[in-house]
Amino acid sequence: VVKVSAQGRIAIDMDEVVADSLGRFLDIYAREFGTRIAREDLRGRHLFDAVPAEHREAVRGYPRREEFFHDLDVIPGSVEAVRALSARYEIFFATAAMEYPNSFLPKYDWLHRHFPFVPWRNFVYCGDKSVIRADVLIDDHRRNFRGFEGRGLLFSAPHNLLEEGVERVRDWAHVCELLLR
Amino acid sequence: VVKVSAQGRIAIDMDEVVADSLGRFLDIYAREFGTRIAREDLRGRHLFDAVPAEHREAVRGYPRREEFFHDLDVIPGSVEAVRALSARYEIFFATAAMEYPNSFLPKYDWLHRHFPFVPWRNFVYCGDKSVIRADVLIDDHRRNFRGFEGRGLLFSAPHNLLEEGVERVRDWAHVCELLLR
Repeated sequence: VVKVSAQGRIAIDMDEVVADSLGRFLDIYAREFGTRIAREDLRGRHLFDAVPAEHREAVRGYPRREEFFHDLDVIPGSVEAVRALSARYEIFFATAAMEYPNSFLPKYDWLHRHFPFVPWRNFVYCGDKSVIRADVLIDDHRRNFRGFEGRGLLFSAPHNLLEEGVERVRDWAHVCELLLR
Repeated sequence: VVKVSAQGRIAIDMDEVVADSLGRFLDIYAREFGTRIAREDLRGRHLFDAVPAEHREAVRGYPRREEFFHDLDVIPGSVEAVRALSARYEIFFATAAMEYPNSFLPKYDWLHRHFPFVPWRNFVYCGDKSVIRADVLIDDHRRNFRGFEGRGLLFSAPHNLLEEGVERVRDWAHVCELLLR
């Protein structure tokens, strides 16, 4: 583990960790295909794999839409938890924004609005998270721990619920239990 | 030094290292104040410190203008050098874009156009470069080596020419001499 500050540094992913992008996917899908898919139906799979094959391309394209990243809901408990963590740790938001250039400005505005206590100097947009130096990475994609030298915490999201052999955090209360005691 | 891949990873700053943002500053200043300042007049100082005090605020505001980051010239030799380096090293571009949200899209387009052999997964926008994990960081600002664990190479730019006690690279030919022999 790299020790980057007295307290340590935590890098936090955005989508499905602090920002409810899955909710946006489900809303657009319901509006356009008339079927409301529930989060419980996505246990262990992505929405792409849960819809009929002929809808997949459309669903994959949602994040490229201009409005996709605007006004996403906040994942429950995340604001309070990150505020509490920021008293003890250096907090960075690290998001693979490079995949979706239309997300650059909305993500920046969203972080400022919901996490005003985290300075813009601590926002990171990247593609490959192995470039991040931190003690802890909280992320819903296990692949992002490949090449990461610190402690990876898999934040529970429907698509990853069946994964094993990785340290998991169920929700933000669980993160605080682990990192603030 | 963190060894992140067999060959090693090089993180490269953009402004005044691969992109000639100083040229844009000088052009706008000449157009708006009627005085063409030469690069040689900036030995050891920033443009802000070389202009009359009453012009400083205007000059500091240039990078916030919509067009500032569009079509910047490429620093001589950088494309060929980075192409050669990319055969031996993992190349990341790491730019403190967070200070200027208007730079997000132009920087992304510019990198794609001039360095098409570096994938978008290897672009990083950050504020504080201590979050970058790489073996080498090539940057024109010495302050960006603070907290960086690898080897910092100060890329010569007019404003840093008087700085000492840091490993300096004069130009891209010099970088290749150091890293490709």
